[in-house]
Amino acid sequence: MTTDPRSNADISSPPSDSKQRVSQMMRQLQDKICQTLESVDGTSKFQQDEWERQEGGGGRSRIIRDGSVFEQGGVGFSEIWGSELPPSILAQHPEAAGQGFYVTGTSLVLHPSNPFVPTVHLNYRYFEAGNVWWFGGGADLTPYYPFVEDAIHFHTVLKQACDAHHPAYYPVFKQWCDEYFYLAHRQETRGIGGIFFDYQDGQGPLYRGSNLEGASALYSNQLSLPVQRTWNEVFAFSRSCSEAFLPAYIPIVERRQSTVYGEHERNFQTYRRGRYVEFNLVHDRGTLFGLQTNGRTESILMSLPPVVRWEYGYQPKPNTPEAELYETFLKPQDWTNWASSTSSKV
Amino acid sequence: MTTDPRSNADISSPPSDSKQRVSQMMRQLQDKICQTLESVDGTSKFQQDEWERQEGGGGRSRIIRDGSVFEQGGVGFSEIWGSELPPSILAQHPEAAGQGFYVTGTSLVLHPSNPFVPTVHLNYRYFEAGNVWWFGGGADLTPYYPFVEDAIHFHTVLKQACDAHHPAYYPVFKQWCDEYFYLAHRQETRGIGGIFFDYQDGQGPLYRGSNLEGASALYSNQLSLPVQRTWNEVFAFSRSCSEAFLPAYIPIVERRQSTVYGEHERNFQTYRRGRYVEFNLVHDRGTLFGLQTNGRTESILMSLPPVVRWEYGYQPKPNTPEAELYETFLKPQDWTNWASSTSSKV
Repeated sequence: MTTDPRSNADISSPPSDSKQRVSQMMRQLQDKICQTLESVDGTSKFQQDEWERQEGGGGRSRIIRDGSVFEQGGVGFSEIWGSELPPSILAQHPEAAGQGFYVTGTSLVLHPSNPFVPTVHLNYRYFEAGNVWWFGGGADLTPYYPFVEDAIHFHTVLKQACDAHHPAYYPVFKQWCDEYFYLAHRQETRGIGGIFFDYQDGQGPLYRGSNLEGASALYSNQLSLPVQRTWNEVFAFSRSCSEAFLPAYIPIVERRQSTVYGEHERNFQTYRRGRYVEFNLVHDRGTLFGLQTNGRTESILMSLPPVVRWEYGYQPKPNTPEAELYETFLKPQDWTNWASSTSSKV
Repeated sequence: MTTDPRSNADISSPPSDSKQRVSQMMRQLQDKICQTLESVDGTSKFQQDEWERQEGGGGRSRIIRDGSVFEQGGVGFSEIWGSELPPSILAQHPEAAGQGFYVTGTSLVLHPSNPFVPTVHLNYRYFEAGNVWWFGGGADLTPYYPFVEDAIHFHTVLKQACDAHHPAYYPVFKQWCDEYFYLAHRQETRGIGGIFFDYQDGQGPLYRGSNLEGASALYSNQLSLPVQRTWNEVFAFSRSCSEAFLPAYIPIVERRQSTVYGEHERNFQTYRRGRYVEFNLVHDRGTLFGLQTNGRTESILMSLPPVVRWEYGYQPKPNTPEAELYETFLKPQDWTNWASSTSSKV
């Protein structure tokens, strides 16, 4: 890495129009995604609720329901401000204590009706509190049925978006995603992951996760080295990742949406959706942040699936697609090197 | 209150056979409840899984499914021990730090298929760590359709069990229940409440809740005064409450189980069950404790409903039973004085 000639102050200060620029990017992201999803669905349209937050800010929640592809999907943009960040965030960024804050972001969860089409989640967000700022976000895929080519495609598109900015991004953020979207009480990943990053302030180490005990062992020293970047560089990286969402997900939808399914597959899908609920309500930082900041509950929880089942003691039968999901797809895998890493096994 | 002539040490020490006695009480409670529920259901029987916890202890999880009354119900007994209580409990009882602990309890959640039969929850538990010990527990009712007589009955039976031991118990533990089973993000109580208590060690104040901001304003100074009690007295009180469960709940089941319902009522029930999931996964101390102590996930989460719906932006239509539930039954009410407190309104 070359030494950056700029002082730390230059590197860390956000430009004066930072909030407007990120806010616009987040709105455009929401617009573009909704437009494309409506066109893919072909039947249903997004309904929008605009809302205001009494303590400052507001958002646009958009819901698509009973479509031909999407049983339910929510795409939310929000922009909120206030006098101090909530405790869950300050614990990670104590230097922001006592400072007014600004947060904007776009997030989505899509629940397709066809069990062969994966559920997907995206969230990109930006925090600013005085001179403190950081970007966070990512996207991850939760298939119900195991298709190696879908997993490879999703990861490859995200990797390309990352590689265009720094070669260390994808390996670090891919592993952080596996770590973050991990249900410790089930000993399962939520799905096949994708990328996840947080606290990207242009100065600190790339990796600052801590969700899964012992995860730090996964990371080589090299990956936790700081990568000094300007605000503009981190912003551009975040935008690239967010723009990679549609090319990463839509081809998978198109490939799977016409696959015929029956009650068996539907039951498995509604059962597995329970894990999504467990993750969002027990672990997810975004949900916690929303509930702690007196966010709009319907918007925060619009990620929850329309129909869900819990079944005591369920286990997939051996040698079924359901068992393959558990054995291979609910564990971290090196999907972009799948062919080479598995050639000896096959 | 009369001054207790015994020293603090006498009052606070548990008897040498404390664990065995509570453990037996908890097992008998599970047995009695399961026996009665099977007889009320008439069709389905409980299936039992015995399990062991690697770090120490185990339990008996019992599930009834697809019965004529109970769509799903779980009644669990557990008894676990280890080298130190988890952080969530130590935060409330720092004097137990560094001590080995023992916890036993019985808990249940019943999800009837008929939307006119309320869901119900019970949990009684006992903690011991060195000379530190305390009892906790309670029972609360979650109706989907509003019946004043059911609410009065449930509360009256629990009040009688409390009143037999101390006149301050019911008013304090009734309000603590309203406070504990409160979904702040929905601004709703989970149901019509019941009683809830925790940290009953015979010495401290009866009330030690803190779930709902500003709740302390609800309590008069008098109610937070200590009520000195021996271990035997607190044990007997806890047992009386647990034995009041069946007479509090079963008559309501018998009154409602044959009421005819259709898709409309079923949809409302599955929607409202979502609140149960939200409470258990976001707020419930028992769930958190279980997941933090490496408990058996299937047993901890057997309280979750079999079929659940989330629906963005749902609101009940005015002047319907659903609206009445929200307006009256999802707010704290003085049910045991309902007739007199509402006579002026009616």
